[in-house]
Amino acid sequence: MASFLITGASRGLGLAFIKELACLPPSKTGKIIAGTRTDSALLNDLAKTSSGRIIPVILDVTSQDSIKKAAAEVIKFLGDDDLDVLINNAGVCHYVSDGVKTMDTLQDDFTINVMGVHWVTQAFLPLLQKGKMKKVVNITTTLGSITLARQMAVYPCPAYKISKAALNALTVQWALDYEKEGFTFVAISPGWLKTDLGGGEMADLTPEQGAKTTLDFVFNKGQEVNGKFLKVYIQGWETAGYAHVYDGGEAPW
Amino acid sequence: MASFLITGASRGLGLAFIKELACLPPSKTGKIIAGTRTDSALLNDLAKTSSGRIIPVILDVTSQDSIKKAAAEVIKFLGDDDLDVLINNAGVCHYVSDGVKTMDTLQDDFTINVMGVHWVTQAFLPLLQKGKMKKVVNITTTLGSITLARQMAVYPCPAYKISKAALNALTVQWALDYEKEGFTFVAISPGWLKTDLGGGEMADLTPEQGAKTTLDFVFNKGQEVNGKFLKVYIQGWETAGYAHVYDGGEAPW
Ligand SMILES: NC(=O)c1ccc[n+]([C@@H]2O[C@H](COP(=O)([O-])OP(=O)(O)OC[C@H]3O[C@@H](n4cnc5c(N)ncnc54)[C@H](OP(=O)(O)O)[C@@H]3O)[C@@H](O)[C@H]2O)c1
Ligand SMILES: NC(=O)c1ccc[n+]([C@@H]2O[C@H](COP(=O)([O-])OP(=O)(O)OC[C@H]3O[C@@H](n4cnc5c(N)ncnc54)[C@H](OP(=O)(O)O)[C@@H]3O)[C@@H](O)[C@H]2O)c1
Repeated sequence: MASFLITGASRGLGLAFIKELACLPPSKTGKIIAGTRTDSALLNDLAKTSSGRIIPVILDVTSQDSIKKAAAEVIKFLGDDDLDVLINNAGVCHYVSDGVKTMDTLQDDFTINVMGVHWVTQAFLPLLQKGKMKKVVNITTTLGSITLARQMAVYPCPAYKISKAALNALTVQWALDYEKEGFTFVAISPGWLKTDLGGGEMADLTPEQGAKTTLDFVFNKGQEVNGKFLKVYIQGWETAGYAHVYDGGEAPW
Repeated sequence: MASFLITGASRGLGLAFIKELACLPPSKTGKIIAGTRTDSALLNDLAKTSSGRIIPVILDVTSQDSIKKAAAEVIKFLGDDDLDVLINNAGVCHYVSDGVKTMDTLQDDFTINVMGVHWVTQAFLPLLQKGKMKKVVNITTTLGSITLARQMAVYPCPAYKISKAALNALTVQWALDYEKEGFTFVAISPGWLKTDLGGGEMADLTPEQGAKTTLDFVFNKGQEVNGKFLKVYIQGWETAGYAHVYDGGEAPW
């Protein structure tokens, strides 16, 4: 039985994680703590029907004060339970109007997508150290691959790409420092998802597909994926000329 | 005859660039603009004996106001000359006391090492667009290679590593956007240098070696290195068991 904390759980992939986890039997998933920047009606409704398994907690990943308060609440909610898995999912993506020279959101994107992950990880590390699974999943994207930058040049979101490359580098620093303690830190690209950030219906996958396949790694892989940059595996896409996109393999840095 | 702007020219590698450039004949190097955060005695002394070729300019890369003022001054100094080469050299490196969990300088390192480069490049782009060479060198380090992170784990400066990985990603975004205009944006790792940042005498190379071999790329390579992450070539190191370190080749992202 594993307990989870997911950030950015108000909508999109974060909310899909909460739904997927709540569908699993209590023998597999314990308490599901849903971090949300502001009160979320969608999440509250879901929590009401979860027999106390889903616990919404206010958590703005850019505010160290908010993170501290959330950590104190989570300790209270967990009681004698451990925290097993942290999924750093909260994130933003901004577009530029006329190439990288007009990029003016890099500091903001960095604060949310990188500092947010670092601060949340710092704050919840002591709880994760007491847990059995010791897993931290940082939600990244293949747009953050520097190697693939030329192929990805058509997507005009340089600040997002750069911040996710930095998130990948951050993930590896944590992975190297904590592997001796049995931790697994992994950067997972969940695929192109039909969420607000993903641009809605034109994307490839539902948020539920992204959540389910990301959780496959959490439940079925151990330290052999520590410090790696992984793509989810989506059945059926092998034959669609996208063999490399959703093959469950490693993405290049 | 190429004109240069170098940031962080008060000491270390930046000052070595100024010295090396001033030793070249005026047929090769024109005006050498030396950006420095505060007035630098070392630089001023050098400028006095340079017959007006070295021009110190106050330029704090973290202040958009300072950058704007510097750009106006540079336009004045250049007169009818173009700006050919920008070397984004200013940088900082901070160490942690107890691993990545104690990392508390990431935002500062990011502001100087990444935002500084972005803002300076934005401000000087119009001048570089008028220049003949259109070269921008971002000084990076192989410590910023995510691929090499495990080998580099002994150096306890995670914020520096993450910020330089982000700088590499930034370099590629600029490279892809401006290659059609004839620009070359390149990230060069100058080697481990005997500077304040490099830890002084225990390092491998003098700042002059780092500057000279970096300038070899500027004078001898063109758009074939656009968007690449390069190591300098130091003669004699092939046989020292460091063949891959100073081989003038590409570093992995
Ligand atoms: N969608 C895709 O195609 C795709 C692809 C690859 C990776 N990803 C990654 O997947 C993650 C989730 O993205 P999504 O597609 O689900 O995006 P989304 O629908 O826009 O949702 C973003 C979530 O992040 C939260 N958030 C933003 N800033 C926050 C802050 N400061 N503190 C706490 N929460 C904050 C939002 O909360 P509010 O509701 O309060 O704004 C929301 O819950 C992101 O890391 C994204 O980079 C997405
Ligand atoms: N040394 C190495 O082994 C090594 C290896 C690989 C890459 N590098 C890179 O080489 C570059 C130069 O490093 P170094 O070894 O010469 O370091 P250094 O001796 O410590 O000099 C750093 C320079 O950056 C300037 N600087 C710092 N913050 C600034 C700001 N906000 N605005 C303008 N200038 C600022 C400093 O100015 P002040 O004098 O005013 O402080 C100084 O001129 C850095 O980008 C570094 O990452 C160095």
